[in-house]
Amino acid sequence: MYATLPKLAVSNHLIDLRSDTVSRPSKGMREAMASADVGDDVYGDDPTVTALEEQVADLLGKEEALFVASGTQSNLIALLSHCGRGEEYIGGVGYHIAKYEAGGAAVLGGISPRHLTPDESGALVPEEIEAAVQPDDPHFAISRLLCLENTFNGRVQDQAKIEAACAVARDNGLSIHIDGARLLNAAVAIGRSAQELVAPVDTVSLCLSKGLGAPVGSVLAGPKDFIAKARRNRKMVGGGLRQSGVLAACGLYALHNNVERLADDHANARAMAQKLTEIDGVEIDMNSVQTNMIWLRLSKRGEGSFSTYMLERGIIIGEPDPGMRLVCHLDFSADDIDKVVDGFAGWLR
Amino acid sequence: MYATLPKLAVSNHLIDLRSDTVSRPSKGMREAMASADVGDDVYGDDPTVTALEEQVADLLGKEEALFVASGTQSNLIALLSHCGRGEEYIGGVGYHIAKYEAGGAAVLGGISPRHLTPDESGALVPEEIEAAVQPDDPHFAISRLLCLENTFNGRVQDQAKIEAACAVARDNGLSIHIDGARLLNAAVAIGRSAQELVAPVDTVSLCLSKGLGAPVGSVLAGPKDFIAKARRNRKMVGGGLRQSGVLAACGLYALHNNVERLADDHANARAMAQKLTEIDGVEIDMNSVQTNMIWLRLSKRGEGSFSTYMLERGIIIGEPDPGMRLVCHLDFSADDIDKVVDGFAGWLR
Amino acid sequence: MYATLPKLAVSNHLIDLRSDTVSRPSKGMREAMASADVGDDVYGDDPTVTALEEQVADLLGKEEALFVASGTQSNLIALLSHCGRGEEYIGGVGYHIAKYEAGGAAVLGGISPRHLTPDESGALVPEEIEAAVQPDDPHFAISRLLCLENTFNGRVQDQAKIEAACAVARDNGLSIHIDGARLLNAAVAIGRSAQELVAPVDTVSLCLSKGLGAPVGSVLAGPKDFIAKARRNRKMVGGGLRQSGVLAACGLYALHNNVERLADDHANARAMAQKLTEIDGVEIDMNSVQTNMIWLRLSKRGEGSFSTYMLERGIIIGEPDPGMRLVCHLDFSADDIDKVVDGFAGWLR
Amino acid sequence: MYATLPKLAVSNHLIDLRSDTVSRPSKGMREAMASADVGDDVYGDDPTVTALEEQVADLLGKEEALFVASGTQSNLIALLSHCGRGEEYIGGVGYHIAKYEAGGAAVLGGISPRHLTPDESGALVPEEIEAAVQPDDPHFAISRLLCLENTFNGRVQDQAKIEAACAVARDNGLSIHIDGARLLNAAVAIGRSAQELVAPVDTVSLCLSKGLGAPVGSVLAGPKDFIAKARRNRKMVGGGLRQSGVLAACGLYALHNNVERLADDHANARAMAQKLTEIDGVEIDMNSVQTNMIWLRLSKRGEGSFSTYMLERGIIIGEPDPGMRLVCHLDFSADDIDKVVDGFAGWLR
Repeated sequence: MYATLPKLAVSNHLIDLRSDTVSRPSKGMREAMASADVGDDVYGDDPTVTALEEQVADLLGKEEALFVASGTQSNLIALLSHCGRGEEYIGGVGYHIAKYEAGGAAVLGGISPRHLTPDESGALVPEEIEAAVQPDDPHFAISRLLCLENTFNGRVQDQAKIEAACAVARDNGLSIHIDGARLLNAAVAIGRSAQELVAPVDTVSLCLSKGLGAPVGSVLAGPKDFIAKARRNRKMVGGGLRQSGVLAACGLYALHNNVERLADDHANARAMAQKLTEIDGVEIDMNSVQTNMIWLRLSKRGEGSFSTYMLERGIIIGEPDPGMRLVCHLDFSADDIDKVVDGFAGWLR
Repeated sequence: MYATLPKLAVSNHLIDLRSDTVSRPSKGMREAMASADVGDDVYGDDPTVTALEEQVADLLGKEEALFVASGTQSNLIALLSHCGRGEEYIGGVGYHIAKYEAGGAAVLGGISPRHLTPDESGALVPEEIEAAVQPDDPHFAISRLLCLENTFNGRVQDQAKIEAACAVARDNGLSIHIDGARLLNAAVAIGRSAQELVAPVDTVSLCLSKGLGAPVGSVLAGPKDFIAKARRNRKMVGGGLRQSGVLAACGLYALHNNVERLADDHANARAMAQKLTEIDGVEIDMNSVQTNMIWLRLSKRGEGSFSTYMLERGIIIGEPDPGMRLVCHLDFSADDIDKVVDGFAGWLR
Repeated sequence: MYATLPKLAVSNHLIDLRSDTVSRPSKGMREAMASADVGDDVYGDDPTVTALEEQVADLLGKEEALFVASGTQSNLIALLSHCGRGEEYIGGVGYHIAKYEAGGAAVLGGISPRHLTPDESGALVPEEIEAAVQPDDPHFAISRLLCLENTFNGRVQDQAKIEAACAVARDNGLSIHIDGARLLNAAVAIGRSAQELVAPVDTVSLCLSKGLGAPVGSVLAGPKDFIAKARRNRKMVGGGLRQSGVLAACGLYALHNNVERLADDHANARAMAQKLTEIDGVEIDMNSVQTNMIWLRLSKRGEGSFSTYMLERGIIIGEPDPGMRLVCHLDFSADDIDKVVDGFAGWLR
Repeated sequence: MYATLPKLAVSNHLIDLRSDTVSRPSKGMREAMASADVGDDVYGDDPTVTALEEQVADLLGKEEALFVASGTQSNLIALLSHCGRGEEYIGGVGYHIAKYEAGGAAVLGGISPRHLTPDESGALVPEEIEAAVQPDDPHFAISRLLCLENTFNGRVQDQAKIEAACAVARDNGLSIHIDGARLLNAAVAIGRSAQELVAPVDTVSLCLSKGLGAPVGSVLAGPKDFIAKARRNRKMVGGGLRQSGVLAACGLYALHNNVERLADDHANARAMAQKLTEIDGVEIDMNSVQTNMIWLRLSKRGEGSFSTYMLERGIIIGEPDPGMRLVCHLDFSADDIDKVVDGFAGWLR
């Protein structure tokens, strides 16, 4: 899907529904960035990076945290730090780590992936996790880690299912990492603290540059010795940055200003999905619209390229094949909904 | 399953049903081994190895072949030679390459695995292969290779399905490797030539130390430039052997003496399965007994350990949990069938 | 050396001589950053990143360029993009790629390093390069790439030596990468264009966050198809950033404002070295002070920790064991020289 | 050097001086092989393999041992078992592990190599080992292992130097592996037990297929938990063999029959070197002829290809460029010396 997106001239007047990663830093965030107190973070001298790391560690209830360049880097470093060469992680088919990270853990780290098919909600089934854990035998890689994801395709994971999966993992000696790129969307959507949601896991990846609206950056949190290993691995992948306080300042701004407002994105997604589902030819499982994403399928087609049709109306969107997602974010407002809905209706007419 | 097998004192009087790998070299094979003309194969000077490689290349209709130490090594070298770092192969959940090779391609070679769920017969579904091929996008590993397996769990793969899978692979620019560890069982079972069965694929791994009864060794066959790469990779994994003609002589003996007799193993498996399935508590899908393997489940249990019970009766076998397989081979004769059947019946009584 | 540095409270009043990486973004640079036009660079939509990439490609006379997070990431991606698994690069003992990048190319990329001992100036000897190229034999990795570095430990590489090394590399079918983290220091020091200096090589890594004073970022330049591979590898290591135009804006500002002034750093280094070398106990090869670095040894010692002594005088510096370097940069002015010189003199008295 | 060797028709009447790996199994060894009691060693059922492993463990004074396919495989498995991804070993430029194993530890295992230049005898200098150990810093790989080699290019390592190197390694928390491919040559040459020679190290690789005359195989010895890891890694590289007792029987035969006779090879090498060095144009450091190898240089050249000239006289040998080695072994007798010497003299005349 990513590959087929049109290459665009950028304009602030376009509605961009491809991802919440497209949101641009606001005026306030830019001011925070420009006035950040910085140092050389490779030497541990950047006070803004340190502050961000401490605040995220607190937010997630973990010992320490590490600022990294992206969600992919956060997951890669987490895997490199949890798993040695020849060890195996258990994740889900369709998880970001399985689908959109170029196989980095296997390719760069010699970590063997085992991807189970999750249930409809995105949860891994405890019995299948248990069955996937390898006995101690040279025929098999060594099972080391369970990888979860919350939200998954916009769905908030059922905390009871997360706890059940974690319980099986613990019983089998696995550590647990969660890709919480959009964890705060989950927390806001169900009104529970982020800390509570990640209490059963060891390490958490949280993205600042998706719904939170920072330009660049993610944070990886976990136990102190894990973060020490992660710091090593971050350097090796070239993620040791210098005055990265300019980016961390955006992250801090986002945590202080952009968390509660995720509820607006969720409301926009819900409202837009409701209107779209009334159009003949648009199929949406409304039960799946839980945060800022709408996943839909079109049961019929209009003429020509849908993305071109929409682009002419100022809307950036992928082709609806086989399905597509619409993602609400900071730069999408309730006022934009009708324009998008009209676009769908127009093309499908 | 492998991990729970009892450690045994070896005796020629035991019936060993764990695998066809347990078969021991016959007197004739030992004589061939002892009188082999040999040289240093790392220098390309072993005439017996060269002869074996040429005969297997002919047998499989491929340009060249390479003698390797094991089926796992053959598959590993094939993957290293087909796929660069960061490239992906498509295989099947439950295939040997996916399940019993310690993740070697990912762990050692930085090759990203993508395992699809095969249909009941073990075949990959063409539509799913097509869907698994990645678009050219930095989010994804580069799809490079399709990996098939024949026989799979004792089942002969439907040649039409193999051709369909290969056609999709070709259309998408993939190369194709087949794990033909027991390819000759398939050929004998359906009365077609091995060459015909592997005509649609580029490279083939064939084992000499399973049903063919050689003590050690497999052969990897394919195009000339592929075998040149494979020779490099064989050296790197420590598979460059010296006077390996002593092993190759066994392989040649096996190809000349032990191929047609695979039909006996198939007949024995069929006959034993028929008798076992008549025992209350033994469940076998007779349709799956196509070569030398019986896969069964027990719907009830006797007292104590089954493997211990059987071992006391001179039969080596795993625990029936969750299922188990019985494998017929050179060192198992029709006369042994009743002893095994009686063992099952006795324990389940 | 890096490991023994004191962990400091950051202050703008301290003189920091550890590296030119410690320089902080200026007011003008911060304004450029805050007002940058940005988009999602993973989708190719960030105009400021694109502008920086184009300007660096022009500056270096290469087809295309790619913005990356750090010098280590730039070199890592260059190696991953030049060399396949099992291929070898030839570099120099003491080069950044050999010494300070945690072995990333080998560890993550399965690339075999071959490090030759450079001559005193840091140049690799053509005859030794030739001898290091491996014949086509499974005993050996495949020689693929020559890696150079300019400046090396502050020394400007002799262009004739670079050309000689490159000529041998070309004759032997090797590609050539240069770590030009401080290439512009070399260009300014000898008054030749950067483009001219890198004309003999295929790919160049240039750092924006060292002497140029940007907070974060490097640029990798080379042929179009190489940059396409590099873009893939950048994503895999987690270096695909979103609105990284905020960082690229600093890089553009640096290229427009901070290149010519590198001459000031060079003059400061020269002047400070001259004064230091007059102190009894300080040994400097004045011939090695060619850009912004001073490498020195102390032939005697003062009392207690030198770095603590200096820190009490507002100067951040490592321990002089076995040697040490002082690096001049944007945040170090001619007025600071005497303070540093007095510190050395005081401790050694 | 290896790459330039002629491809030959094999004949028992040729004198082959390329390596001791070319020696062929004797009649007695073939009989031992043909009558070996065997089982499936992947299941741990091969009594002959087990006997060999126990005898080598005893011989070397280590807890356990593992039969592997080659010296390269033994070293590769040792490195994979000692070092995790991102860890570093310290070895010597010119050691087999550094020069002739295709970079396998780096390429397949993500292990960073650090090769120091040994002294003239092949020994690593303790001060340089100490300096090579990395501080705990993300810029550096983690130093984990010291790799030694004995004999090195036919030279018996000075035990005091080995002990000094090991002492430094211990002080710095490194484990120690020795490539003892020809360890028994060293032991026989200086009349000390193999066990004594490897007492200071943790793990040892010993080859059966070089001077000892077995067709295939090496043994890796070390602590019990190390061998458990090695067994895993052996399976992953495809080194898990089935009825490998046929090869182990040759190894046992070699240990019982071919150790003391290594003295003959040493005497032959010495005698031949003495005669060769008297020829005008042949340069040999007689002090380096300590076991079964002669390293020589030719200060002038005859007409045409030397290897072709010698082959016409029934002698297989490489080209003398830049230097060459002659290796004595089981299939080379004192009677062959004059023929070789005459060949050199003839070509150089």
